[in-house]
Amino acid sequence: MEVNNRYVTITKHIQGSAKESDFELKVAPLGLSVEPGSNDIIVKNLCVSIDPYQLNRMKSYSSSQKTVQAAVGISPGLPIDALGVAKVLVSDNPEFVKDDLVVGFVHWGEYSVVKGGMLRKLDPKTELPLSYHAGILGLSGLTAYAGLFEICKPKKGDKVFVSAACGSVGNLVGQYAKLSGCYVVGCAGSRDKVALLKERLGFDDAFNYKEETDLNSALTRYFPDGIDIYFDNVGGDMLEAVVANMNPSGRVAACGTIAEYSDAAKRAAPNMIDVIYKRIKIQGFLAIDHMSLHSDFLSTTTEYIHNGKIKVQEDISNGVESIPSAFIGLFRGDNVGKKIVKIADE
Amino acid sequence: MEVNNRYVTITKHIQGSAKESDFELKVAPLGLSVEPGSNDIIVKNLCVSIDPYQLNRMKSYSSSQKTVQAAVGISPGLPIDALGVAKVLVSDNPEFVKDDLVVGFVHWGEYSVVKGGMLRKLDPKTELPLSYHAGILGLSGLTAYAGLFEICKPKKGDKVFVSAACGSVGNLVGQYAKLSGCYVVGCAGSRDKVALLKERLGFDDAFNYKEETDLNSALTRYFPDGIDIYFDNVGGDMLEAVVANMNPSGRVAACGTIAEYSDAAKRAAPNMIDVIYKRIKIQGFLAIDHMSLHSDFLSTTTEYIHNGKIKVQEDISNGVESIPSAFIGLFRGDNVGKKIVKIADE
Repeated sequence: MEVNNRYVTITKHIQGSAKESDFELKVAPLGLSVEPGSNDIIVKNLCVSIDPYQLNRMKSYSSSQKTVQAAVGISPGLPIDALGVAKVLVSDNPEFVKDDLVVGFVHWGEYSVVKGGMLRKLDPKTELPLSYHAGILGLSGLTAYAGLFEICKPKKGDKVFVSAACGSVGNLVGQYAKLSGCYVVGCAGSRDKVALLKERLGFDDAFNYKEETDLNSALTRYFPDGIDIYFDNVGGDMLEAVVANMNPSGRVAACGTIAEYSDAAKRAAPNMIDVIYKRIKIQGFLAIDHMSLHSDFLSTTTEYIHNGKIKVQEDISNGVESIPSAFIGLFRGDNVGKKIVKIADE
Repeated sequence: MEVNNRYVTITKHIQGSAKESDFELKVAPLGLSVEPGSNDIIVKNLCVSIDPYQLNRMKSYSSSQKTVQAAVGISPGLPIDALGVAKVLVSDNPEFVKDDLVVGFVHWGEYSVVKGGMLRKLDPKTELPLSYHAGILGLSGLTAYAGLFEICKPKKGDKVFVSAACGSVGNLVGQYAKLSGCYVVGCAGSRDKVALLKERLGFDDAFNYKEETDLNSALTRYFPDGIDIYFDNVGGDMLEAVVANMNPSGRVAACGTIAEYSDAAKRAAPNMIDVIYKRIKIQGFLAIDHMSLHSDFLSTTTEYIHNGKIKVQEDISNGVESIPSAFIGLFRGDNVGKKIVKIADE
């Protein structure tokens, strides 16, 4: 038996911004059988995570470049792996059987062959929407959790600033920081997002960075007592302005630099005299280094969701063919919350 | 009884580079008596430390600027405090008596009144030159020790790069790192300094950054296996090139940014994508936050000096009137090792 598998791929390595023509929806027949002894699993994908970091994987790097070693590149024409929730169709792995719901690295496509069965089984009685497992309870959530708690170590009363605060990671960082007793301000790129941050997501304050002509003085206005923690999703000018407004012993979790992903010229040049005299720490991190926190993160966050202490903010598109525009929209700030593409019903 | 006290001061706040005309040698009578109950001590200064950070204290800052909070400003016309070794002339502090040798914050001048007697007594039987207590055993040494061991946590086999490696702090960082089993490369601004690093100070390799047209490829040449630790004394282009050549989990101790002290335009813009994907930590620090290490530092370093495992590299000028040129020379790289001005014989 075989199916026609539609999946998204890139037509060539991407330089600068991503555009629709960089992507192609391919169709290929997929036989629904697995090699005995392979542990492979074939799944039907239900929803997949759409994340800005994928752009870094779509670029080409010279072999001499040590950059982005952790980001395994994506090859034109091949499927693009991404976190997703799926249903098992065929399994050679004794831990999984047909119809199991699973989460793990599948593809931006309708079906995936998961080599060696590197998947996690979901509780079939889960009451949470399946998309949560690709977003808030997936790498986006772990990134927020690890970056805030491991890198920034928030204390009650700390003044916390989050950029791209309506994004998949930022909105959660702000909510975790509020639950830790911090004062939290976020920035985003529209009035609607600012309203959402203040009214639904519980941020103490928020502003639209596009309406500010001078980020440095904007931050001085929102943080008259200085910034203790900055969760950086954007890099660029904002990082410079934050360093200028930071308190002694300030901590910056460098999580993303979306301003630089598509335009390498927009690099931040933070004042190193500030960094030294204020003993600022700027620490890059990846969620995958903090898998030891995973079970803590899952249980804590699931409980917060159940008791309403954390609001889930998702932005869902439908159909595998919507993946390219969903992805490109991330860099225009189209998404409000975690971007997910729903590919099929259960 | 009174003496004529000659001391150096600035004529106005300094913008950009320091020049001779920014300084003045003042003469003022100083009565050799102290207020009973004050704990004050009057000392005759024997030698004083000359450090680049003083330039940051000589600038003027607007009150809204949160920058350089730790650097208490220097006022035009007033004495400039600096670490030095001195001899007690008059003491109201019961812990000190006439002729005690002391180390602490005195002034760029011939005599100082030390308020409250914040000084440390030297062992009168010390066999080490007194200047060591203002340099290698003073804040320069503690800065090297704390920055390397607390911020960078060197492991055997780590690849360590030190900029301004012939400077007061850099030369020691390299020597400590060698004693920790690291591979150490330094850069400096002349062939003589490069030779000194390799031949006398035990660096594995060294280069003259002024002879390199492309710092990025120079570092790739000296560190084919990447850089694990960077002790940054200069900021600017070099910091950018280091981040590009850094290994995963690389650590940068941001100690000085001498390229930016006199030219704020020379700011480093490290690639934040590298910082994130390679999980790089850039940590500003000041030695004063690490006073808990002081006794460890003193005993370890004194032993290393005595058994020849650390070479002391000093650059001594003579006379209070030589202080301005000694200071200005730091920014031209005139000094080879720790710059000290000897003011008087014991």
